[in-house]
Amino acid sequence: MKAIKLDKIIKKINDDFSISGNAHSKTIDNTTTPAAANKKSLIWLKSSEKILEHLNNTAAEVIICRKDFDVPVEFLKSKCFIKVENPKLTFLRLVDYFFSEKPVYKIHSSAIISPNAKVNKKVSIGPHTFIGGEVVIGKGTIIRGNCFISNKVIIGQNVFINAGVVIGSEGFGYSRNDKGELEKFPHIGGVIIEDEVEIGANTCIDRGTLGDTIIRKGAKVDNLVHVAHNVDIGKHSLVIANTMIGGSTVIGDECWVAPSVSLMNGIKIGNKSTIGMSALVTKDIPEGETWAGVPAQPMDKFIALQKKLKNLL
Amino acid sequence: MKAIKLDKIIKKINDDFSISGNAHSKTIDNTTTPAAANKKSLIWLKSSEKILEHLNNTAAEVIICRKDFDVPVEFLKSKCFIKVENPKLTFLRLVDYFFSEKPVYKIHSSAIISPNAKVNKKVSIGPHTFIGGEVVIGKGTIIRGNCFISNKVIIGQNVFINAGVVIGSEGFGYSRNDKGELEKFPHIGGVIIEDEVEIGANTCIDRGTLGDTIIRKGAKVDNLVHVAHNVDIGKHSLVIANTMIGGSTVIGDECWVAPSVSLMNGIKIGNKSTIGMSALVTKDIPEGETWAGVPAQPMDKFIALQKKLKNLL
Amino acid sequence: MKAIKLDKIIKKINDDFSISGNAHSKTIDNTTTPAAANKKSLIWLKSSEKILEHLNNTAAEVIICRKDFDVPVEFLKSKCFIKVENPKLTFLRLVDYFFSEKPVYKIHSSAIISPNAKVNKKVSIGPHTFIGGEVVIGKGTIIRGNCFISNKVIIGQNVFINAGVVIGSEGFGYSRNDKGELEKFPHIGGVIIEDEVEIGANTCIDRGTLGDTIIRKGAKVDNLVHVAHNVDIGKHSLVIANTMIGGSTVIGDECWVAPSVSLMNGIKIGNKSTIGMSALVTKDIPEGETWAGVPAQPMDKFIALQKKLKNLL
Repeated sequence: MKAIKLDKIIKKINDDFSISGNAHSKTIDNTTTPAAANKKSLIWLKSSEKILEHLNNTAAEVIICRKDFDVPVEFLKSKCFIKVENPKLTFLRLVDYFFSEKPVYKIHSSAIISPNAKVNKKVSIGPHTFIGGEVVIGKGTIIRGNCFISNKVIIGQNVFINAGVVIGSEGFGYSRNDKGELEKFPHIGGVIIEDEVEIGANTCIDRGTLGDTIIRKGAKVDNLVHVAHNVDIGKHSLVIANTMIGGSTVIGDECWVAPSVSLMNGIKIGNKSTIGMSALVTKDIPEGETWAGVPAQPMDKFIALQKKLKNLL
Repeated sequence: MKAIKLDKIIKKINDDFSISGNAHSKTIDNTTTPAAANKKSLIWLKSSEKILEHLNNTAAEVIICRKDFDVPVEFLKSKCFIKVENPKLTFLRLVDYFFSEKPVYKIHSSAIISPNAKVNKKVSIGPHTFIGGEVVIGKGTIIRGNCFISNKVIIGQNVFINAGVVIGSEGFGYSRNDKGELEKFPHIGGVIIEDEVEIGANTCIDRGTLGDTIIRKGAKVDNLVHVAHNVDIGKHSLVIANTMIGGSTVIGDECWVAPSVSLMNGIKIGNKSTIGMSALVTKDIPEGETWAGVPAQPMDKFIALQKKLKNLL
Repeated sequence: MKAIKLDKIIKKINDDFSISGNAHSKTIDNTTTPAAANKKSLIWLKSSEKILEHLNNTAAEVIICRKDFDVPVEFLKSKCFIKVENPKLTFLRLVDYFFSEKPVYKIHSSAIISPNAKVNKKVSIGPHTFIGGEVVIGKGTIIRGNCFISNKVIIGQNVFINAGVVIGSEGFGYSRNDKGELEKFPHIGGVIIEDEVEIGANTCIDRGTLGDTIIRKGAKVDNLVHVAHNVDIGKHSLVIANTMIGGSTVIGDECWVAPSVSLMNGIKIGNKSTIGMSALVTKDIPEGETWAGVPAQPMDKFIALQKKLKNLL
């Protein structure tokens, strides 16, 4: 890669920043972790206990860190520190600008698009992906390979769908008849995926039974997540890997759902709430709360219970 | 959609029913949830605490409800109530008849069928699906796109397999040798999927090691379920999303396995038993019992333990 | 299948063994479970409580068992016992030699290989599989159908990848900006899959953010496992179905990770450690230890806690 001068990097920082140390004739041509860095690497340092350890063990000379990081004087001679409010955010924007592979808008020749799907010209659709009828796909959206997008799925702009995703699968709803046999509840609803949503690999999103399943603007869903019929995931919420969301459950805006969580069907998770790893949630969670445990309860009760259990031993 | 007159609907009800309210010149042309309904919607009302709330908030005029629902007199003037024993079941049969997309029996041009597979003519096989050798597929079976059906898989009639499903994958069995390396146990068995089974999206069903893995008549398996080698799932049982079934485990008939359950290998779940969400089952469960918890125990013990834990706080 | 004489079988046993019983003119032409066996079946008997029950109920006449199994005298007249140290291992090697389908090295015509991927000639790549750019695939490797192998993935020799696997998907890392929106951390790292690794169906392995995600020599990963960015799985370790491994977590060599486990991001699991089913691991586990529970703790503490909880009732 071509060398990038420090002043070119600095021009791309939109946040407040200050420079400490030696900025003289610095250039970068790669980005990596502190340990793997060479003199031409751009790195960032997390504000953790180990920050000095990382700093001692890196060859990088251009470093993004928090503005309140008190750089030990011995590093100021050789290294250049770009100090910002949120180093992770500043770093990711720089990496995105200078190092990310830019998407190419192209429909792979092996993808199959139903004739009555409405697909914007500026999209990328990967190999062996199928796009069903009555599907709409907005501008800037990227769908990787081996995806199966069934009928009645509306996908917004700048959505990113990883490989192996199934959207619009028949939901799981049955009624047992008097012979003990299961009769299927027909699923005639659709799926709505709003702008800037991201969906992880091999995740499944079922179509609604009568209404629609909805994933709202900017929400991010990780790999191997089950999103049942009529689920509603709020704006800018995160749902992490292997999580199971039961039918008709509503997750509010800006929530954090940790990995391997199970959310019962028909419950409501308030805005800005947080659910801990492997939790089993069987009740509504009020706005802004943090819950954990199996079954899940508010964090203070969960911690108190863990202490009591420790004392039993 | 064309309007359907009430008498046409009533003719399709096979169960006992009675009509209350105003049946005069009712027609429907859609079906949806109570809240989203208009005057031409067919809806059903669940017998929950919220039934009056739903009734107050719906514009629908043709409503299926339980025969013991005491309809408030003010609704009888404008709306028509079809009262039955099991409204969900009656409703789903009507929706299936009047509103479901009917399957088209067709093998997609991008599907690949091994020359020595025996595939009935009346089947539907989706795009980018692969059907291996020594596979049999019965009449009326639907296999969606991106499925991989390996060798030695027998699939019955009227089976429904969602997108992304893998059937017949090599099971996971190894023996550690004296160097600490893992040597693979060869899997030479097959998979048997009986009539009317349904398999959810991205679910994996491993082939047997020596014998076969079996999913019996009418059983329904949801999305992202792992069915290990030599598992045997009984007739008309339900296995819900993200569940993990260990090798050689046997699930009886008419069981209910909730989402995110883990069943240890080599155990037996009796007929008509119920397993609660996120349970970890490490022992046999006798017929007809309900178990929950991590590790799972009979429901009364589970509830007693939850109470004791609450009292600790 | 053609009959195989006992002496031909015995020649293929590399381990120490002794013969008990009647070896006269025995031949086999199949292998199966004890219950399903006929006179021409090769079987093995596990050293469990039920060993006599299995022996009483099998028609097999060539039986591999442990060298310390005291065969009841009444079976010695008709059956031939091959006694070895590790019957499972001896049996699996024989089955592999005599009964396994041998892989055919062939790239399916529907597979798509990027022009700048370096693929050895002796590989098998299944239908509807995609191999991205900058991918290397070593000799003897088998990749089944419907896999999506993204850019920057290095796959060693004799690797086995089941159907539906996604390797190199974009990891899940975001930073919330001051508007509450999520901005994506670019993932520019790759994935390294070393020799003799096996990957289960529909498993997802994310690419590293800056460094690489690594699965080391001989490790086996089961179906529906989530391997997040920058995870490092050690040599000859087993990771069983539906497990979730958080970003940058390191699993040592020769570990056993049971099904449905969740490993928090950024932790270290020591060599030769064992993690019980459904455990939630939130801390480092020292070498050689066995942990279980939600949250996980050392086995002795876990068992003590289970006892205390039982006493509460």
